[in-house]
Amino acid sequence: MTRRTIPDIVIGRLPVYLRALNFLIAEGRQITSSQELGDRLGISSAQIRKDLSHFGEFGKQGTGYDINFLYDQLRQILKVNRMWDVVLVGAGNLGKAIADYGGFAGKGFSIKAIFDTAPEKVGLAMGIDNRIVQPIGELADTIRTKGIIVGIIATPAEEAQAVARTMVDAGIKAILNYAPITLTVPSNVRVQYIDPVVGLQRMTYYLQG
Amino acid sequence: MTRRTIPDIVIGRLPVYLRALNFLIAEGRQITSSQELGDRLGISSAQIRKDLSHFGEFGKQGTGYDINFLYDQLRQILKVNRMWDVVLVGAGNLGKAIADYGGFAGKGFSIKAIFDTAPEKVGLAMGIDNRIVQPIGELADTIRTKGIIVGIIATPAEEAQAVARTMVDAGIKAILNYAPITLTVPSNVRVQYIDPVVGLQRMTYYLQG
Repeated sequence: MTRRTIPDIVIGRLPVYLRALNFLIAEGRQITSSQELGDRLGISSAQIRKDLSHFGEFGKQGTGYDINFLYDQLRQILKVNRMWDVVLVGAGNLGKAIADYGGFAGKGFSIKAIFDTAPEKVGLAMGIDNRIVQPIGELADTIRTKGIIVGIIATPAEEAQAVARTMVDAGIKAILNYAPITLTVPSNVRVQYIDPVVGLQRMTYYLQG
Repeated sequence: MTRRTIPDIVIGRLPVYLRALNFLIAEGRQITSSQELGDRLGISSAQIRKDLSHFGEFGKQGTGYDINFLYDQLRQILKVNRMWDVVLVGAGNLGKAIADYGGFAGKGFSIKAIFDTAPEKVGLAMGIDNRIVQPIGELADTIRTKGIIVGIIATPAEEAQAVARTMVDAGIKAILNYAPITLTVPSNVRVQYIDPVVGLQRMTYYLQG
């Protein structure tokens, strides 16, 4: 196992490769190249070859990558060749959009339970699986009972840290946080942030005008 | 100007530093260190010092960084010490959540116009500035008339490419895309993706269970 030596930045690009391969499969394609993937993603072909070389030999010199094979390998590496149950906290517009998001299907994630603090939200059916919104007081029990380790926070900023603490205490190990605050969690818990400001600010550096 | 030599990956971390500094300011703090920033962000202090060294000398050995000074400098480098007007396309739950998002205020962005293809959405008032949702047919004209170069796409996947094309043809240079597809745009247009699957898949690699 050479896992622990692979830079996190490389791991971060694998889901992007997976998404590109997914689109190629949808287009009915069978073979691709690091050049084509690079052109599609705005990443150099050398970088893609180097990233993939951490995990083995996926392409043959001159013949490119077998798309389905590479897709399956990357899913296995990222452990998304299985389903991860997910809890979602926050049933406002954002929570609704996440619950309705069709993009999770087949990507390894299934929202199993939705929670909100607002009494008027509790009891509503929401999302593609028509989950009933539960009161926030049931969050910890649900996580423990179902053995869920992945959570999504889509609450206002001021509620997010308390939700994260409840999640972590109940056993959550990975949090996708939409609230515009940096969460404090133990070092064995992973957090990824979804923040439109970070995405926008990353582009303005390059803009004139 | 050494701008063009700075790796994009470094630029990508500056908004994250800016957000951390913003929270320190909100806490009433005045001085911080690369160590403290690193601990908060899960990035090594050496990386932070190296990233910042691309842009000059922001801290003194042994005394740390003046938070307000560093904050102002980073805002200037990222060109967010001004307001960028933004068009938003998509007025569903996700578009509503983006329009309502309080996190843009003071971060350099202001949503100036909102568009949707659905007749029942057009004419609704939406977001913290109560913008009236306009028909998609007015998108190009609005972009040109107001000289807007930043756009956000929050449409279903199947509409996103056409919206991107209209945006780019009208003059948009930076797109934040929430739709789960990779957009094809000219090389002088920047795209950043907001994709929960990418964030989640980036974490499962590290999970057991």
